[in-house]
Amino acid sequence: MARILISNDDGYHAPGIEALYHALKDLGDVTVMAPDQNRSGASNSLTLDRPLNVRQTDNGFYTVNGTPTDCVHLASTGFFEHRPDIVVSGINNGQNMGDDTLYSGTVAAAMEGFLSGVPSLAFSQVNRGWGEIEAAAQVARQFVQMFLEKNIRTALLWNINIPNVPLAELKGFEVTRLGRRHTAQNVHVMSNHRGEAHYWIGAAGEVKDGADGTDFHATAQGRVSVTPLQVDLTGYASMADTASLVNGLL
Amino acid sequence: MARILISNDDGYHAPGIEALYHALKDLGDVTVMAPDQNRSGASNSLTLDRPLNVRQTDNGFYTVNGTPTDCVHLASTGFFEHRPDIVVSGINNGQNMGDDTLYSGTVAAAMEGFLSGVPSLAFSQVNRGWGEIEAAAQVARQFVQMFLEKNIRTALLWNINIPNVPLAELKGFEVTRLGRRHTAQNVHVMSNHRGEAHYWIGAAGEVKDGADGTDFHATAQGRVSVTPLQVDLTGYASMADTASLVNGLL
Amino acid sequence: MARILISNDDGYHAPGIEALYHALKDLGDVTVMAPDQNRSGASNSLTLDRPLNVRQTDNGFYTVNGTPTDCVHLASTGFFEHRPDIVVSGINNGQNMGDDTLYSGTVAAAMEGFLSGVPSLAFSQVNRGWGEIEAAAQVARQFVQMFLEKNIRTALLWNINIPNVPLAELKGFEVTRLGRRHTAQNVHVMSNHRGEAHYWIGAAGEVKDGADGTDFHATAQGRVSVTPLQVDLTGYASMADTASLVNGLL
Amino acid sequence: MARILISNDDGYHAPGIEALYHALKDLGDVTVMAPDQNRSGASNSLTLDRPLNVRQTDNGFYTVNGTPTDCVHLASTGFFEHRPDIVVSGINNGQNMGDDTLYSGTVAAAMEGFLSGVPSLAFSQVNRGWGEIEAAAQVARQFVQMFLEKNIRTALLWNINIPNVPLAELKGFEVTRLGRRHTAQNVHVMSNHRGEAHYWIGAAGEVKDGADGTDFHATAQGRVSVTPLQVDLTGYASMADTASLVNGLL
Repeated sequence: MARILISNDDGYHAPGIEALYHALKDLGDVTVMAPDQNRSGASNSLTLDRPLNVRQTDNGFYTVNGTPTDCVHLASTGFFEHRPDIVVSGINNGQNMGDDTLYSGTVAAAMEGFLSGVPSLAFSQVNRGWGEIEAAAQVARQFVQMFLEKNIRTALLWNINIPNVPLAELKGFEVTRLGRRHTAQNVHVMSNHRGEAHYWIGAAGEVKDGADGTDFHATAQGRVSVTPLQVDLTGYASMADTASLVNGLL
Repeated sequence: MARILISNDDGYHAPGIEALYHALKDLGDVTVMAPDQNRSGASNSLTLDRPLNVRQTDNGFYTVNGTPTDCVHLASTGFFEHRPDIVVSGINNGQNMGDDTLYSGTVAAAMEGFLSGVPSLAFSQVNRGWGEIEAAAQVARQFVQMFLEKNIRTALLWNINIPNVPLAELKGFEVTRLGRRHTAQNVHVMSNHRGEAHYWIGAAGEVKDGADGTDFHATAQGRVSVTPLQVDLTGYASMADTASLVNGLL
Repeated sequence: MARILISNDDGYHAPGIEALYHALKDLGDVTVMAPDQNRSGASNSLTLDRPLNVRQTDNGFYTVNGTPTDCVHLASTGFFEHRPDIVVSGINNGQNMGDDTLYSGTVAAAMEGFLSGVPSLAFSQVNRGWGEIEAAAQVARQFVQMFLEKNIRTALLWNINIPNVPLAELKGFEVTRLGRRHTAQNVHVMSNHRGEAHYWIGAAGEVKDGADGTDFHATAQGRVSVTPLQVDLTGYASMADTASLVNGLL
Repeated sequence: MARILISNDDGYHAPGIEALYHALKDLGDVTVMAPDQNRSGASNSLTLDRPLNVRQTDNGFYTVNGTPTDCVHLASTGFFEHRPDIVVSGINNGQNMGDDTLYSGTVAAAMEGFLSGVPSLAFSQVNRGWGEIEAAAQVARQFVQMFLEKNIRTALLWNINIPNVPLAELKGFEVTRLGRRHTAQNVHVMSNHRGEAHYWIGAAGEVKDGADGTDFHATAQGRVSVTPLQVDLTGYASMADTASLVNGLL
């Protein structure tokens, strides 16, 4: 029976992970290990300056006072007797498309599964607010079922964004590349009642590249966007230019 | 006069950022904005659930109760009257090579500069402990000086790792690709005096791909490794395979 | 219908607050507002450097990313349309007797109710582990019921410790004074796998004054200990001695 | 040579602890151990769910990623080879009078020294902003010098508030009792740019009891207020009333 690990970045109590758990629980030996708080925006952050605490809730979920990456890391490096065969992250409260993937804890949790060598899937709903979360959970179930039926055990990493519509209204699937966003909006300064200034990180930028073929475009057409990801950040295309500049240093 | 923004992930009080500041301060209008604590391993995490506080220290540094990415984000989205012309991150206490780049707050700070559209450089020393930090700071100065002299204003992102040796013993520069590591070592379980179990994230994995041409190889030869990075995580090479699997869903 | 506010320091998910809620819910208009994490040892700490987030769980509890004092403070200063008529804190996982009361978040939550002007009760079980938590909840119910029946609306603060035995085995109630503990045990030093030293706060000291009349003594006899508390820390008894020393300053 | 331990709640970098250190450093063997961040409002909170990290800064101060109480606790339970002979906390950025003492980390740090058995002094300036901090430091020096000259080694706890005026303008010392405040001002609700509500703890209440003899009154007259504190919260005066109510439970 396949060992399915579920995590997320919205915290173990979020409707998205609850729906995912219920959609997958009869497909294998399902374990949930997730942050004890909302850790949206956690990216791949790892907790290195303190040890982590793990608590098991009444419904059997494991919660960790750490990040999404911490959760999958623990689960993949010996916390449990057996390592997962597949890692499923989400379902996130809102899209993770384009440059969002760099900041997303949902994608990071799946990336940690990928780095540990197993198929790993990150699921997000395009709009916030959990509308049609059951439909999204059924989509996630289709993916996991396919991976189990085909017995895929090699490391791969898919980033999946699902429009918030009923299952019957989804317009199919599209394999996409990541789009791009404009730079983020300005910092928001707020003064509290004591006159102290505080700074909120501004909203993500508007879509800059949402051309045909991107995740932005596919979901705008009502399709489930499936973007295969890789984790080598090397900028191969600019190595020659880099070399000519670096030569100037000698 | 060029506006140089310095940040890091070891915190504003770390010897690496002090050395960097002193090496660069006469090259332009230098501002330091850095986390108020050690945030190693912070990756690209952004603080979204609370506003940030900014404090200026006696020596003029700005400290933020947030992540490296928060710092560069604030500085690039309107905290200061002017945005930086170049972002310099580090010098980190220990290497950021291969898969480390995904977790590194040092690289993330530079990546945030890159996403805002300016040249951005991340510097790390290969070994921990700050040995020969002045030499590393002089290397960083050479890079920044070149960017200023050539008046490079386009977004680029370089990840630079420097062996901990005196300046005269460095064996030149090499443009590299990222190597790869094996998966991380196992979680470490410790019981405290109250009998409660706590879990430390294990050490990074051993080098798996340190072949000629990688950052691991270049620094092992005593050279400064310069890896140009890009931030598109799309796995173009696996799009066809992904499509054939996804078709199975319909 | 009396407005009953419940809080604690073990976090909203702790068995003690669940049991308390179920024991009290038909006695009035019951609201639960509690920390989103275990905040044992939080004392009267208030969160002043950031705003607080409030989330409502599926079962209607309000959770706050803050301290026990934050929770009761919010509830008593306008978060809800109406302020509580009585504050009940606990049931804590382990005793709060003697000097423990200075560090206890459970007692602090009740103290915040007292400072806002209403009757406030802190409940703790003598032993950790939730043994006989239902019995403790029934004891708490008796107290609250009495306050409601007598329609007591004046500020008072009671610290109540309950032996972990079945209801029928409790040996009655005793009004007590706080005992005293010896100073705490030594700090515990631990090295993690990276050779970094970390320091755990040691256990509370042994009982130094557990004489007849103290909370330690009453509970050791199987009785429920009820200690009325006050919050004026002035050391009236030492004012004369202080004055003679301070005169030496002039 | 007397061992003087200095701590505070504003963090190791605050002007108040710097001034205190410089004023006391030739009076004995002075050690500074303080929180690595501003922990105002920390009360007596102890960190129990994770181990603490200690770092030594360039100027020899020890910083702890914990609370004021953690700092004095570590220093008093074996972190250093020798325990302190006297604990001095502050100088705080703003008054700690009346009910403030329950929330104050400055007072808590001194209280921890008192509980460990040594003379312990908490110093605060009446107004925020560090005006005349050198004068306050000189006042603190007078107190410590007196304790050392008289060789006082018994546990006592003084809470000292100093008007922000030049030394020559201070109108002497007064031994006081704590005043009282009205309940705190209402919670402040703020919506951020994403429309999410956040809640700031409101300001402390206005003075309710600032009669002759209180700390509020003494400082308003320009005098240094010295309030001896004790830590037994037992409400002896209400034990009889409590008993008559508790009898109703049987």
